[in-house]
Amino acid sequence: MPAKTNGVGVQVEDTKICVVMVGLPARGKSYIAQIAQRYLQWLSIPAQTFNAAVADMLRWFRSGGVVGILDATNSTKDRRKWVHEICKANGIEVLFVESLCDKEEVIMANILDVKTSSPDYKDQDPDEAANDFRRRISQYEKVYKTIDGDGDEGDYTYLKIMNIGKQVIINRIQDYLQSRIVYYLMNLHIRPRSVWLSRHGESLYNLDGRIGGDTMLSPRGELYAKKLPELVRESVGDDRPLTVWTSTLKRTIATSRWLPPHYNQLQWKALDELDSGVCDGLTYQEIKDSYPEDFVARDDDKYNYRYPAGESYRDVVIRLEPIIMELERSEDILIVTHQAVLRCIYAYFMKKDQAKSPWMNVPLHTLIKLTPRAYGTEEIRYEANIPAVSTWRGKGSTAKHEAPTGDTM
Amino acid sequence: MPAKTNGVGVQVEDTKICVVMVGLPARGKSYIAQIAQRYLQWLSIPAQTFNAAVADMLRWFRSGGVVGILDATNSTKDRRKWVHEICKANGIEVLFVESLCDKEEVIMANILDVKTSSPDYKDQDPDEAANDFRRRISQYEKVYKTIDGDGDEGDYTYLKIMNIGKQVIINRIQDYLQSRIVYYLMNLHIRPRSVWLSRHGESLYNLDGRIGGDTMLSPRGELYAKKLPELVRESVGDDRPLTVWTSTLKRTIATSRWLPPHYNQLQWKALDELDSGVCDGLTYQEIKDSYPEDFVARDDDKYNYRYPAGESYRDVVIRLEPIIMELERSEDILIVTHQAVLRCIYAYFMKKDQAKSPWMNVPLHTLIKLTPRAYGTEEIRYEANIPAVSTWRGKGSTAKHEAPTGDTM
Repeated sequence: MPAKTNGVGVQVEDTKICVVMVGLPARGKSYIAQIAQRYLQWLSIPAQTFNAAVADMLRWFRSGGVVGILDATNSTKDRRKWVHEICKANGIEVLFVESLCDKEEVIMANILDVKTSSPDYKDQDPDEAANDFRRRISQYEKVYKTIDGDGDEGDYTYLKIMNIGKQVIINRIQDYLQSRIVYYLMNLHIRPRSVWLSRHGESLYNLDGRIGGDTMLSPRGELYAKKLPELVRESVGDDRPLTVWTSTLKRTIATSRWLPPHYNQLQWKALDELDSGVCDGLTYQEIKDSYPEDFVARDDDKYNYRYPAGESYRDVVIRLEPIIMELERSEDILIVTHQAVLRCIYAYFMKKDQAKSPWMNVPLHTLIKLTPRAYGTEEIRYEANIPAVSTWRGKGSTAKHEAPTGDTM
Repeated sequence: MPAKTNGVGVQVEDTKICVVMVGLPARGKSYIAQIAQRYLQWLSIPAQTFNAAVADMLRWFRSGGVVGILDATNSTKDRRKWVHEICKANGIEVLFVESLCDKEEVIMANILDVKTSSPDYKDQDPDEAANDFRRRISQYEKVYKTIDGDGDEGDYTYLKIMNIGKQVIINRIQDYLQSRIVYYLMNLHIRPRSVWLSRHGESLYNLDGRIGGDTMLSPRGELYAKKLPELVRESVGDDRPLTVWTSTLKRTIATSRWLPPHYNQLQWKALDELDSGVCDGLTYQEIKDSYPEDFVARDDDKYNYRYPAGESYRDVVIRLEPIIMELERSEDILIVTHQAVLRCIYAYFMKKDQAKSPWMNVPLHTLIKLTPRAYGTEEIRYEANIPAVSTWRGKGSTAKHEAPTGDTM
């Protein structure tokens, strides 16, 4: 019988990888560790970060963990050899990820970032904290040895990242999941940027309470399209160049058509709405009437439920993976897309639980600005103040339009 | 208005990249060049290989070329500087790809490969040809300088591949298309392997002449499922481990269910049949009756035609791209999938014209073995000799079942 898969085509139960961070303090190790963990969890791959606690990590692997990330300096060859041996003895592959940086301004920015946001330094004088931190770094510098590709460590699987992505060295990557992690990490950058998200303007199907389809905007949806350039200008400013990504469906393209002509616009099929298969074009009442078992099954497990001849949220996440990869490579991007797709992208940046994200309220006629920071993603919302129907739906409901309730974001 | 895209989300008309191969003879440069060209052409990105003819290449860029691959040794810093300057002056990005190899057996295998298959040596005595080739290499070795990441060349965008993928160094990759090319090349390997392709056994919808759906196998389809392990054993042998990839649809999973239990099986949604949207479950006669304009439009340009609420062949190629990437990373794989998907995968390996590939005849109940070689892909077919309907269809035809005619493969 076919083996269970996690949906990205990997038999994750056969794989255990320990990602061992290597590098001096303030080289972005914790940033890399937390963003890798977020990415893997978003793909439903059990991933967890550990601070030097190898025993805890081994216990976690035994209980089903797939990617454990050891976020420590691991700065000596002896320490790395020890970690490598203990992992191998437990059937765990090892991927060393070394972050090197010789740009003083990046290191200083990292120090300031840690100093201002780390609980370790919360009550300290800023200058004193920075000095204390520099002293800690110089202690590590005395013993630090980079991974030596020509020497004993040449047989290790490793990724060296120089100055956050300017140059990378990749050695002996062996399997699929390792290659996904490496490709993801080599695409990261730390130049400041934001991602703006918007649903299309209210559509004719939205008015009818119908799902899917490829209808045009309602008159109020047209008003939003006209208003969008103003919202964007307010948030982005005049002189930052922006690239606009839409789906291939009429309602997102129409919503973006009044944006400044010097913005590049790209259409991605991967941004099309979740394919509702045989239910495309139906209202929830019609789905309940025609496919009562499907209606219940979807509410039971909305993330995994796949419409007959259509998609699940899990399927959408997989097809969005190249979009996420490209977003990580890019600078400022505005994405005009659809409710389910926006929920999935939002869940990636905001670390939302995949079981909950399909129930999030993502109102129409609202621009969301997300800005990745070292310790999480900042969010600002801009409302167009143009009325629109609610397309949110509570569990079990067949209402045409329904006001969102409770913890829906 | 939205900019034109090539469907992978890249504005290819804005990008021109010269991939400059670097390396001594017999380091796999031509192999890398031709396989990169094949991959890009499969993605509908205009790509062409040139042997040292820079002027020809510049002319080709002016006529709309996107990725030009300069397949020569480019072994001195001066030569590389000259290529870099001439490209920059013409608005062309430069990506150096250096292939290094210190394994004598790989170099010898490459020499033998060139010697036996290159027209340069066709009429020569084999030993003399090998000696001649070694003399040529030692000439280049005298002047050869590797790309120097710490020196003047540190600002170049480059990929260094050591021993075909064992280690790679990536420097200053800048845009999306460069990153795709680099990711593709870093996944290549030259360990011997084959890819086996099969459609599912004849399905109930095949009998009816209906497209799409998720029906079970016909009695003859069941016979094929029972016979498949024997065909596979005949082709693969007993002791090579094989991984089986199916789609998520019942007919491919059922077709694979009698294969040896020690074969790993993975289901990929990306291997599901082309989504025929509103036409799912219809016969071609019903499509012509209900959607006469679509019927004609599809026959006019089958590769680009997208079913309403469904997919085009072009869309299928894009969603297959991760499958191709993973195939390049893998060793022996058997893929049990669907007519349109198999046509797309076959087109990749066999360099088939995308305009023609949707019309290829891919008979049911046949196992295809593809083996990548240095200068192309070898093909062997194994017929199960179990009768099945033909699902091939000629342009304009609405026949339920039709015998293939003319140049259909």
